[in-house]
Amino acid sequence: MTVATSLITLSGEDVRWAAARLAGRVVRTPVVRSAALDALAGARLWLKAENLQRGGSYKYRGATLAVGRIADEGRHTGVIAQSTGNHAVAVALAARERGLRAVAVLPVDAAPAKIALVHAAGADVMLAGHTLDDRLAAVERLRVATGHAVLDAYDHPDVIRGQGTATLELLDEVRDRGAHLDAVVLPVGGAGGLAGACLAAEGRDLAVYGVEPVGNDSLARSLVTGNRVTVVPEPTLADGLRPAQVGRLPFRIVQHAVAGVVRVDDEAIAHAVRLALFEAKLLVEPSAAAALAGALRLAAAGGLGDIGVVLTGGNIDGSTLGGILAGHDDSGRPAGNHDQEVAA
Amino acid sequence: MTVATSLITLSGEDVRWAAARLAGRVVRTPVVRSAALDALAGARLWLKAENLQRGGSYKYRGATLAVGRIADEGRHTGVIAQSTGNHAVAVALAARERGLRAVAVLPVDAAPAKIALVHAAGADVMLAGHTLDDRLAAVERLRVATGHAVLDAYDHPDVIRGQGTATLELLDEVRDRGAHLDAVVLPVGGAGGLAGACLAAEGRDLAVYGVEPVGNDSLARSLVTGNRVTVVPEPTLADGLRPAQVGRLPFRIVQHAVAGVVRVDDEAIAHAVRLALFEAKLLVEPSAAAALAGALRLAAAGGLGDIGVVLTGGNIDGSTLGGILAGHDDSGRPAGNHDQEVAA
Repeated sequence: MTVATSLITLSGEDVRWAAARLAGRVVRTPVVRSAALDALAGARLWLKAENLQRGGSYKYRGATLAVGRIADEGRHTGVIAQSTGNHAVAVALAARERGLRAVAVLPVDAAPAKIALVHAAGADVMLAGHTLDDRLAAVERLRVATGHAVLDAYDHPDVIRGQGTATLELLDEVRDRGAHLDAVVLPVGGAGGLAGACLAAEGRDLAVYGVEPVGNDSLARSLVTGNRVTVVPEPTLADGLRPAQVGRLPFRIVQHAVAGVVRVDDEAIAHAVRLALFEAKLLVEPSAAAALAGALRLAAAGGLGDIGVVLTGGNIDGSTLGGILAGHDDSGRPAGNHDQEVAA
Repeated sequence: MTVATSLITLSGEDVRWAAARLAGRVVRTPVVRSAALDALAGARLWLKAENLQRGGSYKYRGATLAVGRIADEGRHTGVIAQSTGNHAVAVALAARERGLRAVAVLPVDAAPAKIALVHAAGADVMLAGHTLDDRLAAVERLRVATGHAVLDAYDHPDVIRGQGTATLELLDEVRDRGAHLDAVVLPVGGAGGLAGACLAAEGRDLAVYGVEPVGNDSLARSLVTGNRVTVVPEPTLADGLRPAQVGRLPFRIVQHAVAGVVRVDDEAIAHAVRLALFEAKLLVEPSAAAALAGALRLAAAGGLGDIGVVLTGGNIDGSTLGGILAGHDDSGRPAGNHDQEVAA
């Protein structure tokens, strides 16, 4: 095969280069500790608070890198982002920063709060159909009509490089604070962030784990077969983790680098939202809480002393949060262990 | 008068000394920015996230300093804290850190969640009556019986020095990031934190503002009369800001140093809890949100470009938060302006 992406080889050097490019342009988010969470986990958790990133998610890192390259090249007057959420917000902010137009293609049933967020970030919003294919067709029509550059949410080298800088900052900060991570845990949608984490972890002697919602386990299944498997996404609280398939380039990177994938159900995700909120005082979205849920599961399995968790974003609306809080069982136990497992 | 505290003179040097003592012992909490909050305020807000401090509030700073001195002196085997909340948690944690016993004296109607928090922090909990006088009598009996040292929640030089380090870190970080604060805003209970802020701000050319809940405006009234006024505390969401009177030593410090006091009502406080949560992604307790509500009020009055806000703590239980979220009016307007004013 000689498709374009198969010629691209990325390494830890790419993430370090990206970190240098992004210095001063993205928030160096804090690494938060919680004694109560540590006690619950039976391990030391190091929470990288990317919910405090500009635009409310780590997607701003990859978007800033990719949009910056497009602006520097000067061949496009705008960018097009197809996304149901954080990627569109991030691209819109990054484009405004560099004086480029941004168009976000969202599904017609996108949450009004999310549409408002993308619009407030400065993008034109186009609503197109219900399926990914609908949106991709709309993106192509827009590209032909406008000449804008198209930015994929995960199957893009700059997105992988950029998202990897969140993990790199986490590893560096833990080291600077005199500790060493045994593992780092990230949620998996298209696997761009996980691929970046694998690159950032190169040569660092730690295990990289992905977390997928039950029924949205494209990566776990792909690792078993050795090829990218398409799933029919089931409903999940973690609306950012529902791509039917992981990206081609991310999969090539994570396939032999990831230590495993943990599956978590909605009960565990909701419990992790509450734990992050009341124990770490951080508002995280369900997709980010999935990583914490997975980390708690890994910690319960034993053998890990220090675990990094990339809390990838904090964009959650009031009614979703209200529902999660109303489901609080006050038991203090991590919920939903019954549907979790560690794959590959 | 020659009461003990009247002989004590504190200055900015005391806070810098405290910061050196506390380095590595307390969390250097992040300063969080939010573009959405800035747009709403019409000013740049710099949020010192002391909700991420150990024990969930900035009280851990003063407690660590005071307990550390008691431990170093070696004349006591334990400490007694009278408090309805964060001070007791902070003293318990600091005492455990130094191998001292801790006893917290709480009102019999203290919230079960708060009792659990104090207990989990390692303190023995004594429930004593409904009033401050009941608790002070219990403290005195305990002191005679145990020989433990008594740590007041605000009328104590080490508490003022320690709490002041939160403001000092905020001022230093804003300066290091190339900006200059025109004002810094803190909530006022016994005024220990505000006194520390006034000391930290010495010679820095910025205005220090306090914020009190409506009907709990002991400081605002005291500034008018020139003497400490006792109020009958009215019900307020901000349960940490209900002392009937500000402390003697704090008042002496803030009396001529504070720029003014803003009063905020429950509606404004609840709105600020929601803003901190959804725009800055931080869980703050109502007492801390009061500072944000006050800062928004000051910003609306105009003339301030950069405003620091010390978000003093994040200890709020699920049912209180649920009630605040349920009250969300989605209007996007800062609520409750009608009861706010700037005094002295």
